[in-house]
Amino acid sequence: MLSIGIVKESASGERRVAITPDLVPRLRAAGLTVLVQDGAGAAARFPDSAYGQAGAQLVADVYAGADILACVGRPPADRLRAGQLVIGLLHPDPAYREELAARRVIAVDLDRVPRTLSAAQTMDARTSQENVAGYRAAILAACTYERFFPMLVTAAGTARPAQVLVLGAGVAGLSAIGTARRLGAVVTGYDIRPEARAEIASLGANVLNLDGEGTGEGTGEGTGEGTGEGTGEGGYARALAEGEQQAERDELARHVARHDVVITTALVPGRRPPLLVSEVAVKEMRPGSVIIDLAGGNVEITRPGETFVTENGVTVIGATNLPATMPAAASAAYAHNVCAFLGHVLRDGELAIDLADEIQQAVVVTGGAA
Amino acid sequence: MLSIGIVKESASGERRVAITPDLVPRLRAAGLTVLVQDGAGAAARFPDSAYGQAGAQLVADVYAGADILACVGRPPADRLRAGQLVIGLLHPDPAYREELAARRVIAVDLDRVPRTLSAAQTMDARTSQENVAGYRAAILAACTYERFFPMLVTAAGTARPAQVLVLGAGVAGLSAIGTARRLGAVVTGYDIRPEARAEIASLGANVLNLDGEGTGEGTGEGTGEGTGEGTGEGGYARALAEGEQQAERDELARHVARHDVVITTALVPGRRPPLLVSEVAVKEMRPGSVIIDLAGGNVEITRPGETFVTENGVTVIGATNLPATMPAAASAAYAHNVCAFLGHVLRDGELAIDLADEIQQAVVVTGGAA
Repeated sequence: MLSIGIVKESASGERRVAITPDLVPRLRAAGLTVLVQDGAGAAARFPDSAYGQAGAQLVADVYAGADILACVGRPPADRLRAGQLVIGLLHPDPAYREELAARRVIAVDLDRVPRTLSAAQTMDARTSQENVAGYRAAILAACTYERFFPMLVTAAGTARPAQVLVLGAGVAGLSAIGTARRLGAVVTGYDIRPEARAEIASLGANVLNLDGEGTGEGTGEGTGEGTGEGTGEGGYARALAEGEQQAERDELARHVARHDVVITTALVPGRRPPLLVSEVAVKEMRPGSVIIDLAGGNVEITRPGETFVTENGVTVIGATNLPATMPAAASAAYAHNVCAFLGHVLRDGELAIDLADEIQQAVVVTGGAA
Repeated sequence: MLSIGIVKESASGERRVAITPDLVPRLRAAGLTVLVQDGAGAAARFPDSAYGQAGAQLVADVYAGADILACVGRPPADRLRAGQLVIGLLHPDPAYREELAARRVIAVDLDRVPRTLSAAQTMDARTSQENVAGYRAAILAACTYERFFPMLVTAAGTARPAQVLVLGAGVAGLSAIGTARRLGAVVTGYDIRPEARAEIASLGANVLNLDGEGTGEGTGEGTGEGTGEGTGEGGYARALAEGEQQAERDELARHVARHDVVITTALVPGRRPPLLVSEVAVKEMRPGSVIIDLAGGNVEITRPGETFVTENGVTVIGATNLPATMPAAASAAYAHNVCAFLGHVLRDGELAIDLADEIQQAVVVTGGAA
């Protein structure tokens, strides 16, 4: 009988856990013995007792005994052993990958699930975590901004609604747009991919078009008549040439200045996040404005992991791991992804790794051919 | 020509300012010279330059020169002089009141505007600040709670909506209910005043009825068939007898336990806030739950001004001055209240205090007869 070990994360600030107590019965039904490292869920407010009640065994060391390790971040390579299946958001750099390969670990990076494959949707941890990050960014913005998000008409005057600009309309961006809209803000979204513009509009937000096309106000305006030139492989954004980027930044600056809240989420796979908001653009913003840089590099003056206020009174939040700050929700979604992947590779309680399978080909980063 | 001085607040944590730059022209049009103490609006992110551009004069000391002082909290009594009109949220205790009276200051406590008088609505600072506090409490709850407020159906499972309970449905409570509803939470409101139950229902929230009546689910259910027994003078709640209070607490405990977020806003004029949520009730809540005690005393274990997590993983926030944490919005509304009151007592640029007037009778706490 195979066993799965739920790891207590060790990275600083990481409060998620790979499996939540409610999914322990599902793993047991799949024929696995479930081991939980003491305190694995504590930071996400899942006490050890909840795992125990769900039928898991609490252990001090989970690395030695488990055939499968469920992790959020990278486990220490020196604790792993040959043949062990390690599932996590591993983001393996070449050195870590080599170490895992040398130890003949079967390493699965759940961040690499092909988004365009519908059979893989339930395993898509990148999507589930970005969804949390986007929601969280909008809530954090509302909590940081010192005025109302919705328009309020009261006897003590009318409060105008907050003007929120979301740059990058992938999963995180759309989630932020939806949440800011719920709170009553006037929301504008921007993305270089034409198909994303249609998605922004479908959420009832304004679509920002550059190149002097102006902003399509309301839904359905200015959606998707572009040339598709911003879309790269797999539906992600492509990197723009430096000339294009500079022109984009210059035009964005003027829009940034008239917004109260700017949330940036623009990523290009395999590259540094594009610089969208220059220092000059931030200087033109009104006092009390808020910037949340989710991508960690979309804003020139971001300091990753830090919050500071500029001389002109703009609060800049360099958000590095927002899902970890909403660990209960993020863990619940991630645990579903892990379980779905396990359901995909377990056959009658045994591991059946098959690199001919499109999903496994994408996520298995070492050891699959062993 | 009379002058009005805008004070830089000195109380710890007080970030509001009594007049915002946009209202300076209105005061000047009313025939006043506007003086602003250096840095008065800085904590609310209204720079000195904004006041200057609006036509105010920046001064180092505002107390000596001004005929009228616009304050948020209490100004130091020893800086005031005879005949000066001081407007603020003074909450004067007998000692402070005596000091003001001895100095023959005309002191106006804008917290005492009669809520039931429609002519006074624009001056009602208690209402405007409680509105901010309620919104802020809901946003703070969403930011503290580590799951989603709305229900989300995704490929990585379904997140159930947060269950939010708001105790006390005055201005702050209704504002919290509306905001939590906007975010997609399932909200239940409770108030001992029957007319407040109708208001809870009108916001689309569930109404909690005690005495084994159960919860009216959805709008329009269980609204206002009570006997009016919870309503006291001026439409505020009355104090319950100790026996009634204990029964209320015992029954509330069971409802508190099944909610994820509890926001308490219950006040009784001139008394300590009623104790609604006992320590035992908090112990029965699930890990990850959040309590925000706005009234500062509705929850047995609240520590005013502090946030802590209980042994069973419940975050308890003793919110003392929430409007001050959203200073731009709170100041904007308060400034409208101050201007409306000034409009009421200024006649051709001169003060015309008249204690026969119902509003002034209520708010002028010293010096009106001088």
